[in-house]
Amino acid sequence: MDGWRDLRSVIDGQLDPTVRVQRGLSPLNKALVFLIFLAVLTAVLETEPEIAAGHQSLFASLELIFGVIFAVEYAARVWTAPERNSSVSPWRSRVHFALSPAGMLDALVIILTFAPFVVVNAAVVRLVRVVRIVSLAKLGRTSRALDHLFEAVRSRKDELLATAGLAAVIVLFGATALFWAEGAMQPEKFGSIPRSVWWAVVTLTTIGYGDAYPVTPLGKVLAAMVAIAGIALIAMPTGILAASFSDALARDRAMAEANNAPRTTAEAD
Amino acid sequence: MDGWRDLRSVIDGQLDPTVRVQRGLSPLNKALVFLIFLAVLTAVLETEPEIAAGHQSLFASLELIFGVIFAVEYAARVWTAPERNSSVSPWRSRVHFALSPAGMLDALVIILTFAPFVVVNAAVVRLVRVVRIVSLAKLGRTSRALDHLFEAVRSRKDELLATAGLAAVIVLFGATALFWAEGAMQPEKFGSIPRSVWWAVVTLTTIGYGDAYPVTPLGKVLAAMVAIAGIALIAMPTGILAASFSDALARDRAMAEANNAPRTTAEAD
Amino acid sequence: MDGWRDLRSVIDGQLDPTVRVQRGLSPLNKALVFLIFLAVLTAVLETEPEIAAGHQSLFASLELIFGVIFAVEYAARVWTAPERNSSVSPWRSRVHFALSPAGMLDALVIILTFAPFVVVNAAVVRLVRVVRIVSLAKLGRTSRALDHLFEAVRSRKDELLATAGLAAVIVLFGATALFWAEGAMQPEKFGSIPRSVWWAVVTLTTIGYGDAYPVTPLGKVLAAMVAIAGIALIAMPTGILAASFSDALARDRAMAEANNAPRTTAEAD
Amino acid sequence: MDGWRDLRSVIDGQLDPTVRVQRGLSPLNKALVFLIFLAVLTAVLETEPEIAAGHQSLFASLELIFGVIFAVEYAARVWTAPERNSSVSPWRSRVHFALSPAGMLDALVIILTFAPFVVVNAAVVRLVRVVRIVSLAKLGRTSRALDHLFEAVRSRKDELLATAGLAAVIVLFGATALFWAEGAMQPEKFGSIPRSVWWAVVTLTTIGYGDAYPVTPLGKVLAAMVAIAGIALIAMPTGILAASFSDALARDRAMAEANNAPRTTAEAD
Repeated sequence: MDGWRDLRSVIDGQLDPTVRVQRGLSPLNKALVFLIFLAVLTAVLETEPEIAAGHQSLFASLELIFGVIFAVEYAARVWTAPERNSSVSPWRSRVHFALSPAGMLDALVIILTFAPFVVVNAAVVRLVRVVRIVSLAKLGRTSRALDHLFEAVRSRKDELLATAGLAAVIVLFGATALFWAEGAMQPEKFGSIPRSVWWAVVTLTTIGYGDAYPVTPLGKVLAAMVAIAGIALIAMPTGILAASFSDALARDRAMAEANNAPRTTAEAD
Repeated sequence: MDGWRDLRSVIDGQLDPTVRVQRGLSPLNKALVFLIFLAVLTAVLETEPEIAAGHQSLFASLELIFGVIFAVEYAARVWTAPERNSSVSPWRSRVHFALSPAGMLDALVIILTFAPFVVVNAAVVRLVRVVRIVSLAKLGRTSRALDHLFEAVRSRKDELLATAGLAAVIVLFGATALFWAEGAMQPEKFGSIPRSVWWAVVTLTTIGYGDAYPVTPLGKVLAAMVAIAGIALIAMPTGILAASFSDALARDRAMAEANNAPRTTAEAD
Repeated sequence: MDGWRDLRSVIDGQLDPTVRVQRGLSPLNKALVFLIFLAVLTAVLETEPEIAAGHQSLFASLELIFGVIFAVEYAARVWTAPERNSSVSPWRSRVHFALSPAGMLDALVIILTFAPFVVVNAAVVRLVRVVRIVSLAKLGRTSRALDHLFEAVRSRKDELLATAGLAAVIVLFGATALFWAEGAMQPEKFGSIPRSVWWAVVTLTTIGYGDAYPVTPLGKVLAAMVAIAGIALIAMPTGILAASFSDALARDRAMAEANNAPRTTAEAD
Repeated sequence: MDGWRDLRSVIDGQLDPTVRVQRGLSPLNKALVFLIFLAVLTAVLETEPEIAAGHQSLFASLELIFGVIFAVEYAARVWTAPERNSSVSPWRSRVHFALSPAGMLDALVIILTFAPFVVVNAAVVRLVRVVRIVSLAKLGRTSRALDHLFEAVRSRKDELLATAGLAAVIVLFGATALFWAEGAMQPEKFGSIPRSVWWAVVTLTTIGYGDAYPVTPLGKVLAAMVAIAGIALIAMPTGILAASFSDALARDRAMAEANNAPRTTAEAD
């Protein structure tokens, strides 16, 4: 019984990135990340007719292999769940994990991996791919750098939301202005505010596909104003994030200086 | 009489975000913001023929409901005006509010909401929508984050205007250069400086719709120079704003440090 | 004689922005800046056939008026030149000014303003416009904010040049890669490295007109790499400028703190 | 023998930028950089049929001249190799250099320069050009500013990689969403995830060629979300780099202040 417990503890140590003392992922988690990457790549390439044509059995085999591996991983995570929550009974902690968002996502991906062999439905298979890619987000759990990024965004959340609000107001005003100026000339592209909103988003993000653009002098003057506002709207969040990252670095430096500071005058006395 | 005064004070406390002690909007203001958002969404969707077709009566009813709610809100704001300005007589403060920009905008939006029932004129109705969206700006009154953004922009106003001036000079030079290099080849697009200015704005903001671009080698060399200048012009305001936000954060940190600083050597003696 | 000298000194004080004690431009210089702006706008609009058609005499009159005003300004600048350089004889300082770059540019603009009345040559007239716009740069002389911008750029010149060098290398490599991958498929657009360079510049600056883009899978993979490098190349100068502006603000703050610092322990003894 | 050694030392001092005490490149290295630039320009222009047509012999002569000069440079570098590595015998150090990446690149460029005279093969000649441009990277060896840039990137490597990871996830999700929403309408452009990935990269980098864009309302809503995510993804690395550059400048300033600091109270006692 103790032998099983020791094995369970070792496997959990490999599966759960949060219990690890060393920096980085465990070898097992690195292998799983690599496999998820391969599974996503396979799912992506399978959608391309020029690549998939004539290799259906190869792709089906690959999916089967990935499905078995991820099913084993899921079983191991369920089995080792008591290691991560020792305050309740083993089976309770397993049910907890199975009903947690991470556990249900894992189960969903596995079920959808095997679904094509049961129900041959192209539309469902497509959705499977979308969901399976979510697995990649598992990488996020382990990354300290990602936490830094999210922390920098979170600490300036209000300013970033205010910028987003300003952007939304400019999109609405810009779309209304172009609907008014170009609606009669180009009804297909500016004939309603929702249609103009597509133009406003493509312009404010400076993408500019060229599927919709003003042709009248008045429309061009109004569009130029929206375009210039777009520059300001890109500069705003960039500046906010730059300041937030700078602030985090300055705090780190101040903390390091405080720890390494020379003895004070008072102490020297 | 005192009962009315108490009610007036309570309603004003809900309507006026500046008298609120707690952070955030009052429940009444939150509901009003949500209603303004719905009213704007309704006005936007109503312009789309594919959505509005066959639902004219639904949209008319929605507009009537929104109109009545905003009229009641306006009446409440007029009635509670003395709470916000106790130095003059109640009726004077109400007239003050009605003639203030905020009060006149509110009244205008309400009048224009009911106008379609009086004068059925598509052009006016369209303009109503534009004006009504302005109501969303009310959100700005309550947002401290927006004040931070505006403060960061205001404190670097001179540098940002200088960048805008540089951008204007580059637009003029770029447009003149392309008018000279491509005017004869593409008279529709580069046949005058104003026409070339449209190309220059679309290029400097890196939108690049693709409706106008140089085709001669000389035009392409000149356009490449304008394009590279465009990168510099986007980098400038972003850098200025980043520095301004950083500066504000550093000042906040320095102030916090000054308050938490250990007793100085002199005091220790 | 002294009366003339006093007048000369007063006029020079109005014309020369560097001798002014107060902030901003003198009323005379403000009027001149406004006139230059009007002259540029007139010159720009005159090139647009839809605006100029039927108004030739109006535009000719405007040009004559602007020409006379700028000629008077030039004469005043020559006359007051001794005020700005008292170490040499009055006439020497006037010749100095007339041969200085600013003086020669002023003279050139005036000569070219009157040229159309002598030689009616559309090509020359066009070039006159280009040169006349240069006058707007006069604004730069007075702007302290512009000096701040230039100082921020100058202090990080090496890093910005290194970024430009990196960008040039990526343009060359990207253009060569696409020339190799797409040259045979789209000879008009990628049939030589210079042709591909146009694509690379339009892509790296994220303009993307859509006149040239890869169509083969290999070309798209290579182009995606260039596109991602483009994001890095835009981030680089922005980050450098943000740091430079931040540094200038931090220095200003440190200087202000040093001036307002409380007396030190040593002084307190 | 000593005379040869002295000459070898002098030539090495001119060729090897790392032994130079003064700032900048030696005159010989400046000339070589200029020649490499000319050689690259020649190679680039030679690929353009409109320029090369009728000037084949001119371009061939230029290539011969550049080839001879770079061969002499290579021979000099081999001969002076002992100066740069005095711990082993002269011939060993020469073999070391010849087998080092820099030495092999130099040799490869020279061999490929003369190859066209031996094997007349357009495809090989094209590749020669690609490789020869690599020589420009030699400039990087000497640039301190480039080191600053690379250091700023390296010190924030984790955050930049995390941003790249986020970008990859958004590209995958965006491409899958558009494949699902637009795949049936535009199979040529969104008919598989790899095809949609091209659209996602062009959109997230805000290039927007206009070769692929959504046409259905659902596709436009999803694309707008990807476009807005693109702004965030451009803001992230810019903000990280800005903070990194700022941090480097602040460290430099703190170091300068520490060196110039007034004597401390303890010393004053």
